[in-house]
Amino acid sequence: TQNYRITLLPGDGIGPEIMAVAVEVLNAIGPQHDLQFQFEEAPIGGAAIDATGEPLPAATLETCRRSDAVLLAAIGGYKWDNLPRHQRPETGLLALRAGLDLFANLRPATILPQLVDASSLKREVVEGVDIMVVRELTGGVYFGQPKGIFETETGEKRGVNTMAYTESEIDRIARVAFETARKRQSKLCSVDKANVLDVSQLWRDRVTAIAADYPDVELSHLYVDNAAMQLVRWPKQFDTIVTGNLFGDILSDAAAMLTGSIGMLPSASIGASGPGVYEPVHGSAPDIAGRDLANPLAQVLSAAMMLRYGLNQPEAASKIEKAVLQVLDEGYRTGDIMSEGMTAVGCKAMGEALLKAL
Amino acid sequence: TQNYRITLLPGDGIGPEIMAVAVEVLNAIGPQHDLQFQFEEAPIGGAAIDATGEPLPAATLETCRRSDAVLLAAIGGYKWDNLPRHQRPETGLLALRAGLDLFANLRPATILPQLVDASSLKREVVEGVDIMVVRELTGGVYFGQPKGIFETETGEKRGVNTMAYTESEIDRIARVAFETARKRQSKLCSVDKANVLDVSQLWRDRVTAIAADYPDVELSHLYVDNAAMQLVRWPKQFDTIVTGNLFGDILSDAAAMLTGSIGMLPSASIGASGPGVYEPVHGSAPDIAGRDLANPLAQVLSAAMMLRYGLNQPEAASKIEKAVLQVLDEGYRTGDIMSEGMTAVGCKAMGEALLKAL
Ligand SMILES: CC(C)[C@H](C(=O)O)[C@@H](O)C(=O)O
Ligand SMILES: CC(C)[C@H](C(=O)O)[C@@H](O)C(=O)O
Repeated sequence: TQNYRITLLPGDGIGPEIMAVAVEVLNAIGPQHDLQFQFEEAPIGGAAIDATGEPLPAATLETCRRSDAVLLAAIGGYKWDNLPRHQRPETGLLALRAGLDLFANLRPATILPQLVDASSLKREVVEGVDIMVVRELTGGVYFGQPKGIFETETGEKRGVNTMAYTESEIDRIARVAFETARKRQSKLCSVDKANVLDVSQLWRDRVTAIAADYPDVELSHLYVDNAAMQLVRWPKQFDTIVTGNLFGDILSDAAAMLTGSIGMLPSASIGASGPGVYEPVHGSAPDIAGRDLANPLAQVLSAAMMLRYGLNQPEAASKIEKAVLQVLDEGYRTGDIMSEGMTAVGCKAMGEALLKAL
Repeated sequence: TQNYRITLLPGDGIGPEIMAVAVEVLNAIGPQHDLQFQFEEAPIGGAAIDATGEPLPAATLETCRRSDAVLLAAIGGYKWDNLPRHQRPETGLLALRAGLDLFANLRPATILPQLVDASSLKREVVEGVDIMVVRELTGGVYFGQPKGIFETETGEKRGVNTMAYTESEIDRIARVAFETARKRQSKLCSVDKANVLDVSQLWRDRVTAIAADYPDVELSHLYVDNAAMQLVRWPKQFDTIVTGNLFGDILSDAAAMLTGSIGMLPSASIGASGPGVYEPVHGSAPDIAGRDLANPLAQVLSAAMMLRYGLNQPEAASKIEKAVLQVLDEGYRTGDIMSEGMTAVGCKAMGEALLKAL
């Protein structure tokens, strides 16, 4: 029996509901593959602010560090929106990324055949879209120094952030991206703004240099404004995309929304060593929290990503992914992906359907 | 007779071809409204690099400054892509924006009923979309200091740009945006990343403060990642959007591409005083340059925007806009917007159809 210590961070809003489903799924898949999960739950985000005053208590980070992988649900909500920045749920998320050195964020935007019509784009434009955005997650303008709100010589305020990357930061994310592209269609598109930004010029130079080690991967470059256009125009041209923290934030969300079903999309954040964090792309949806309305499938698919990338258990991951396709084939739909002729279910009932499929 | 001095900057690629059509249209409309245009042409971009070594020769900027308005076509091309940054066409464009203090960039994304099917989005999602993006154009990470590629203590390179805004920079673009929204549906959405960036926090605070002077305009705020998603999901929710230089670059291109016909979209860049610059949203399309294939309509609509915003001649502007709709109704289409049953024409023939319509 393989034993894994998994930290569960249910967070806020619909987090606890969808996490409960993912845990049931893991408990069901474990015995089938001789895996045993030891779960430890810890507070993060708004829940942690309410309990301890801090969005990422030191004890939570410690628990994560001691585990083999971290499963996160979602954080944030209106309730904490007006607190000072250092006390906001998002700050806890950024601290978790920095604390675990999670420099690579993998965000798939895949459209399932069963859900093509949920997209706002025409069927022929999105059918078969399968994009992986590799986003740098611990650098760029999110973390660059100096930053803050300063006073100028004339006495007015000036808000400042620094968009910066060092060569080694670029190199390591580029390598993850080339490796990722290799396991897919071997096409990598690097996105920057090298026609304007010095930091992008260095980005482009380094990605181009690293490409020498991956002659089997076809590398292209796009400016970020053009990339945003091309995603809307003809997303099928993309296989793997690599980009910095801010551009990745924007483009991965745009790519996710192309599918029309962001309640289905998982993500992985990984570092050079230590546990990775696996979480849905969608948010905490405070408006529907606690009403058994949430779609747990992105959380369940995040657990599958954890098995595949974090714990190296691809068979167990595949079995979960197949179960998800099966419940969709059986017609089960939560509200966010509901369409005519399908069977509307809540979060719990979706979980039960999954357990049956397993 | 009203006399206007117009600087023409045809630039590169298809620029000269589409500019020629716009000039003919202006020459046709002039006498009808008792307007006289005195055109002076000047080099910019690649053409200027080839002629003088510089993407924005001092003489060109001088000519622009002396005129009542500037009509720009498009700049750039593969030929100049590998020159050092200070010698690249884009650098000339940035220098023009800075040199004329063009802090407000107005980019409409409007979908014409005749061209709804050109969009990659479903008809019901894009029909009637009418968005105006007000982008700050002379600040933010495009111009912030310090910037460059520096050496760190450990001897590796670090690329750095500074994303910064002062209160007064934010205030003046916010005012333009509120005024713009007022002339439209009085709904303004300010886009930032205030949950992460200090500069965005100041942005949000100032936009909120300025809103007190515009109680008739409904103000909302979105994070940039969410804005990118919402543009894809349901663009009709937007009326006027205001945002910083980089976010505006990305979002205005995404919004433009929603329409599926960026060959139709004009833009205006204006300052506190002095001439504005009017130009199409699309690029210089070097691949089709010189082959009479380009769509001149965005350039013609840019001339209309120049008449409306720059020269305060709304009737002449409206007449041009109506002529554009008329040639579309008559079925004339350049290659980029061609569809079944329509009449395919080149750039010149489209210009002739316009002159007939006028
Ligand atoms: C909540 C926020 C800080 C975060 C980010 O900007 O990275 C989120 O948008 C994401 O993409 O995970
Ligand atoms: C060419 C480039 C410098 C420019 C920009 O980024 O502003 C362009 O993309 C635009 O949007 O006008």
